[in-house]
Amino acid sequence: MRQRYQLKQRPQRSRSYESDDHERGACEWCEYALVITLATILLIGVSALTIFWVFYYRGGYAWADDTPDKQFNLHPTLMVAGFITFSGFSVLLYRICRCFRRIYVKLLHAIFHALAFPCIVIGFLAVLDYHNKKDINNFYSLHSWIGFVAMGLFGIQYAVGFFSFLLLLICNKGTAGFRASLVPIHAAFGILTFVLGVAACLTGLTEKAIFGLGAERYSGMVDEGIIINAIGVAMVAILAVVMYILSRDKFRAPESRGIHMRTSVDL
Amino acid sequence: MRQRYQLKQRPQRSRSYESDDHERGACEWCEYALVITLATILLIGVSALTIFWVFYYRGGYAWADDTPDKQFNLHPTLMVAGFITFSGFSVLLYRICRCFRRIYVKLLHAIFHALAFPCIVIGFLAVLDYHNKKDINNFYSLHSWIGFVAMGLFGIQYAVGFFSFLLLLICNKGTAGFRASLVPIHAAFGILTFVLGVAACLTGLTEKAIFGLGAERYSGMVDEGIIINAIGVAMVAILAVVMYILSRDKFRAPESRGIHMRTSVDL
Ligand code: HEM
Ligand code: HEM
Repeated sequence: MRQRYQLKQRPQRSRSYESDDHERGACEWCEYALVITLATILLIGVSALTIFWVFYYRGGYAWADDTPDKQFNLHPTLMVAGFITFSGFSVLLYRICRCFRRIYVKLLHAIFHALAFPCIVIGFLAVLDYHNKKDINNFYSLHSWIGFVAMGLFGIQYAVGFFSFLLLLICNKGTAGFRASLVPIHAAFGILTFVLGVAACLTGLTEKAIFGLGAERYSGMVDEGIIINAIGVAMVAILAVVMYILSRDKFRAPESRGIHMRTSVDL
Repeated sequence: MRQRYQLKQRPQRSRSYESDDHERGACEWCEYALVITLATILLIGVSALTIFWVFYYRGGYAWADDTPDKQFNLHPTLMVAGFITFSGFSVLLYRICRCFRRIYVKLLHAIFHALAFPCIVIGFLAVLDYHNKKDINNFYSLHSWIGFVAMGLFGIQYAVGFFSFLLLLICNKGTAGFRASLVPIHAAFGILTFVLGVAACLTGLTEKAIFGLGAERYSGMVDEGIIINAIGVAMVAILAVVMYILSRDKFRAPESRGIHMRTSVDL
């Protein structure tokens, strides 16, 4: 009530979206906090579970000529860290750091993806080298084809983001229009990259479950099979939560919400 | 030019979005036609390729006690038809039939999902019965867990859509507000269901490639492996095209576009 009264005393037009916020208030904030917390737990949890799986069932990590299987273990771990955990946080940053200055959010976005980048490169080299050591063909599986497209898109997205951040540093005002026109494309391809990363992980887990356990033991529901399935289910949950957060206009920073364009939003 | 002139003579406000359409015109229409054609080819093509794969490499279809493997073949075929081809068209309908009356688009949407429904049920029973005949555990794999969630979401979505269409028939005006509030939820969960359907298909194809060919022949790049991978790649392409079409506000029917709300849009 008091809230309402105060708002009536400040009828400035430019602040109208804030009064909306105050009125819907508590319930919405609660939903926001809940969903972001859930996403955080899942994003960290999926990497933790993968590392647990490798240590408990797969003998840990190594990179030497006589330990190809331990070297392979770097592949799922680093790919999950790069494509799910780091990329997931990087995507959600724009919804988590709503009250930061935009340039800082961009920097954090760049930093998280800069962390994902070496994970993906080393994760890929680990499996490539593993295949060569074991004399197995490269790129024979559906998993590797999907992974190839996902990594390609990741690279292109990284290049576009990097390039346009350079433009921002060189000439902020003059390139704002161009950079703003890149945003919807960068965002759409970013979501596609994330979805393909999840698809690559799910097919990879399925392959590894059958290669590692054999069809008999996998269908016998041994513990390791359940753990592998649980990693996959966590990824599906992450997909659902991330898509939900991105689809909610209200979770955005006020200045980038639908028609309430206060400042132009650019890349 | 003539177009422009005519438009200037009819400056009614309610038609302003049409003049927008005319001015952006040719290029956009061309993009729209191209993307919709591509989606149609891919959606029909992926089912055709699956049927080809089954007949050419897997001995065709049957449902008898002594032919469990041919009975299994119904599973991928019907699941692809139900979750990808029919559901895909059903989702795109709202972008394809833009000049239809809305009630007809809704009916077509319901009909396409009504076609998908029995496909999914029979496709599921086929694999369930196959497992029981061969004495294999049910629901042991990540694939079956993802499939379970996808089928559950499909069922819920179908029930919600059906129920709210009943409401429309019983009392159109009185329930419009309620039905309109369901739209964003129905749409978001619809996209999630579609994405999970694709994920289920990709993991299923990976399983079948390894079970059917064995790891040796799959990694030896035999023809059948390439065909299976191609089915998966077609699905990834479908995912990309469908997400692209859904993300383009301009591909919507005018009355449901962003802020050009002429009539309220409901379920
Ligand atoms: C987004 C994440 C991932 C990407 C982009 C990716 C990419 C790739 C690529 C490109 C290859 C082929 C390497 C070659 O042929 O030399 C490969 C192989 C493999 N990956 Fe992944 N991977 C990902 C996640 C995973 C995960 C989570 C697992 C789970 C254990 C996994 C398991 C495998 C296995 C078993 C192979 C060897 C068999 C094959 O080539 O299909 N991958 N991966
Ligand atoms: C959206 C589509 C799909 C859904 C919802 C789905 C669902 C399921 C479910 C629930 C099961 C377990 C049945 C049981 O345990 O008794 C299953 C098994 C199976 N499916 Fe699918 N499936 C889909 C597409 C496919 C495709 C395209 C293939 C490709 C060949 C496939 C291959 C298999 C195989 C090999 C099994 C037996 C092994 C296992 O239980 O994982 N599925 N599917």
